[in-house]
Amino acid sequence: MKLAPGLYLIPNTLGSEAREEQILGVIPAEVIHIAAQIQYWIVENAKTSRALLKAIDQHSPLQNPLQQLHMQEWRGSHKNRDSLQARDLLKPCLDGHALGLMSEAGLPAIADPGAEIVAAAHELKITVHPLVGPSSILLALMASGFNGQSFSFHGYLPTAADERTQAIKALESHSRKSKQTQIWIETPYRNSAMLDSLIAATSDSTRLCLACDLTLPSQKIITQTRAQWQKFMKHDVSALQNLNQRPAIFLLLA
Amino acid sequence: MKLAPGLYLIPNTLGSEAREEQILGVIPAEVIHIAAQIQYWIVENAKTSRALLKAIDQHSPLQNPLQQLHMQEWRGSHKNRDSLQARDLLKPCLDGHALGLMSEAGLPAIADPGAEIVAAAHELKITVHPLVGPSSILLALMASGFNGQSFSFHGYLPTAADERTQAIKALESHSRKSKQTQIWIETPYRNSAMLDSLIAATSDSTRLCLACDLTLPSQKIITQTRAQWQKFMKHDVSALQNLNQRPAIFLLLA
Repeated sequence: MKLAPGLYLIPNTLGSEAREEQILGVIPAEVIHIAAQIQYWIVENAKTSRALLKAIDQHSPLQNPLQQLHMQEWRGSHKNRDSLQARDLLKPCLDGHALGLMSEAGLPAIADPGAEIVAAAHELKITVHPLVGPSSILLALMASGFNGQSFSFHGYLPTAADERTQAIKALESHSRKSKQTQIWIETPYRNSAMLDSLIAATSDSTRLCLACDLTLPSQKIITQTRAQWQKFMKHDVSALQNLNQRPAIFLLLA
Repeated sequence: MKLAPGLYLIPNTLGSEAREEQILGVIPAEVIHIAAQIQYWIVENAKTSRALLKAIDQHSPLQNPLQQLHMQEWRGSHKNRDSLQARDLLKPCLDGHALGLMSEAGLPAIADPGAEIVAAAHELKITVHPLVGPSSILLALMASGFNGQSFSFHGYLPTAADERTQAIKALESHSRKSKQTQIWIETPYRNSAMLDSLIAATSDSTRLCLACDLTLPSQKIITQTRAQWQKFMKHDVSALQNLNQRPAIFLLLA
């Protein structure tokens, strides 16, 4: 059956290793099957998208050979060097094709480029098909044990130490008033610095969760109060080896 | 292979109809396989959980017959009439079993009961395994075209008309300053009233998204400015038939 025209939001795995084995754990079979039928793509990174499609091919043969897929890279309007606009990239949909949107990891348009493409699709009355896949943000939230009835994701916090500390204190204060879970990410090589700032800046009873390598064999999720984290950093920190090379999500509930 | 002991966060489908067909579109094959092996369960609603497990059995045969599964219902500490506490329910994990946690729809512990169980698991040093499945909140966010780098989910807004309008205005004002996407839900029978309040309370340029029946054949996602919504309600509103019977997510970006 031919796919209906429209923009298909296709999830990617969360890690670059062993995509072929991982894929069945994080992407539903029908989504794998839909992705295998798509010939036109907008992707954040052609290399990682080809790697995923190669893994998909092992489970649901691609309808068109990998070399014949039309793949356009797009990293957000401010990062695109050429003059292609979101609307230009959507032309295959207007010509009646199914068009896939894929980011480097996880769900497109969430903590990743893509939202401008989706917004342009709505303006052009193109049907948008969101598909199920792994979101490190929601996996971390459900695994944290923190409030899942009210939560806020902030992307990246400031990188300068002073501003980072101020931002953490503001999140803690907001969470204390609203009981809202606060969630953010960090570039992996700054994870240790973030964790140190977080433990230094918060109050003893504030609960902090660090979720690393979600969906990977090395997955580690630690939820404890700041007071417990202080002890942990002295005695058990070996559980967090290579933290600065591991994708991580930070969560706070005061 | 026997599942490692621990608390497994098992997703459910988003709709009650045709679970057997839906399941392959929203739950990864390996997650289906894991769920099929679990004998001990904590569930929000035994009836819907049995329906899902029956659908799972069609794709990955249950290791134990449905009648022999140990299923305990739990709807959050303030709603549980009996005196069972989160810690008591986790006993199977302490005895070395894999224990599944499942809510009535979507991901457990997110906009649904379960967070207290997960929190108790961390306190007891039980390993928590979050698994991939459908979240109507994230599907709506990625499909809205709104800011996915910063977003906030608020659960339910107040139900009294005045307070609802005030809450909407507060969300709009916050979104205007922070550029953060605001997300909330409503009990289906109040969806129309919520949509009317939303259109009445916001400014012309504010973008509003309504996402109904996500992952179902009747899925409908509409993103437009408030000014466009006003015209839509006069001329195209037939596209939103039976809105008061359809699960919906509301999103705003000012």
